Amino acid sequence: MTPADPKLLANIRIVLARTSHPGNIGAAARAMKTMGLSRLYLVQPHVFPNSQADAMAASAGDVLAQAQVCTTLAEALEGTSLALGVSARRRDIVAEVLTPAESAARLLTEAQAEPVALVFGNETNGLSNDQLGQCQGLVTIAANPEYSSLNLAAAVQVLSYEVRQAWLQHPSWPEPELDAASLEDIERFYAHLETTLAELEFLNPGSPSKLMLKLRRLFARTRLEKEEVNILRGILTSAQEAKRLAGPRNRMAE
Amino acid sequence: MTPADPKLLANIRIVLARTSHPGNIGAAARAMKTMGLSRLYLVQPHVFPNSQADAMAASAGDVLAQAQVCTTLAEALEGTSLALGVSARRRDIVAEVLTPAESAARLLTEAQAEPVALVFGNETNGLSNDQLGQCQGLVTIAANPEYSSLNLAAAVQVLSYEVRQAWLQHPSWPEPELDAASLEDIERFYAHLETTLAELEFLNPGSPSKLMLKLRRLFARTRLEKEEVNILRGILTSAQEAKRLAGPRNRMAE
Repeated sequence: MTPADPKLLANIRIVLARTSHPGNIGAAARAMKTMGLSRLYLVQPHVFPNSQADAMAASAGDVLAQAQVCTTLAEALEGTSLALGVSARRRDIVAEVLTPAESAARLLTEAQAEPVALVFGNETNGLSNDQLGQCQGLVTIAANPEYSSLNLAAAVQVLSYEVRQAWLQHPSWPEPELDAASLEDIERFYAHLETTLAELEFLNPGSPSKLMLKLRRLFARTRLEKEEVNILRGILTSAQEAKRLAGPRNRMAE
Repeated sequence: MTPADPKLLANIRIVLARTSHPGNIGAAARAMKTMGLSRLYLVQPHVFPNSQADAMAASAGDVLAQAQVCTTLAEALEGTSLALGVSARRRDIVAEVLTPAESAARLLTEAQAEPVALVFGNETNGLSNDQLGQCQGLVTIAANPEYSSLNLAAAVQVLSYEVRQAWLQHPSWPEPELDAASLEDIERFYAHLETTLAELEFLNPGSPSKLMLKLRRLFARTRLEKEEVNILRGILTSAQEAKRLAGPRNRMAE
């Protein structure tokens, strides 16, 4: 897989229309930056710039500093080829309704060629019919029907998260760097374990198979590292040493 | 499609450990409720209850009112069969690392039988090694490597969102395959292991933490069944018995 192209994320605008609380603008900027988005557009924010926005942005002050403040939604959407409005499900609008994951795929496809936008309305009233009319589709987050009102920045986080996951397609995290034990090491550990359990008289040496099978199953589910095999064998050696000093179980009764 | 079972969501706990800002507790409660989650556990919150928490909860005051305040993480996890810690990727912990979507599937599968938990650490420091040691797996949100620090409530929103999407997509989950040991059983096994290793003089009782952390890591990667815990504790008892008969290591030299 080739690495995902950062230009795609740079072509995705987050547009916040008529936001009431400056803290939400800052929190939205932080949500965007954690997912690699940077293009914030503010349509008639009630209060901006503002110290509460700065505080909630944490280390995303650069996103706030570069935010475009616009007087109309049309201005914020200038140059975009696709705008999707984020809204609770609405019966009065018969637009195409996308899930966040579907919208992410759509936006990234378009973003290869042109800027695109996700549009979020006011905290109390959401997007107006007029604002929705300027969008080509509606994104709805499947929420609890009894309480579907996500905080504005939380909605920005969910959408930005889905954009990033789609962009990554497959999490590109490297596998944990285990220094895996070899199969031979592990077999030697099992042999050591079986010997020790027999010496401890925990295992019936005549029919050890069932218990050993259970123990193999346990350790097969994990992936033993070299160091872990050494630790486990050290423990077995300690137990063997103790048992040799102790003698057979019935020694005391003799 | 039959509707998904609400009992599954009721079996999922959101555990916030040592949260500094009460506003984040309220915002997390709102995030949970919008996704149908209701079981909030607070381990040593710095300030709670609090008016800022109430304000940020909006209409999720019921989730706050029912929140369980605990003095230890162990208390918050009591009765759970699976706890997953949410954390940025950490090189020092080689636990199984799940995506939010994978963790949602895992949690819902287990939640058919027993309560399960998602554990979130402090805003500044995240989860401590000790806290992660009490979790069976790590959930990491694939974020911008240059700024991966999601706000606490935003992280709760993303995980709760993935839980709800998974829950909506699958009206039924496969039965949990394992007869999983409870966290209490596993903690008792660790305590037994530590005691035994000290008795075997394999462990320095003055500083047992590093080796025990390594052993916890090993067993956290597997998911111990009840029967396996019994077998392992039987082995420990045999070793203890042998050691008691053998006496201290330097006995022969005396």
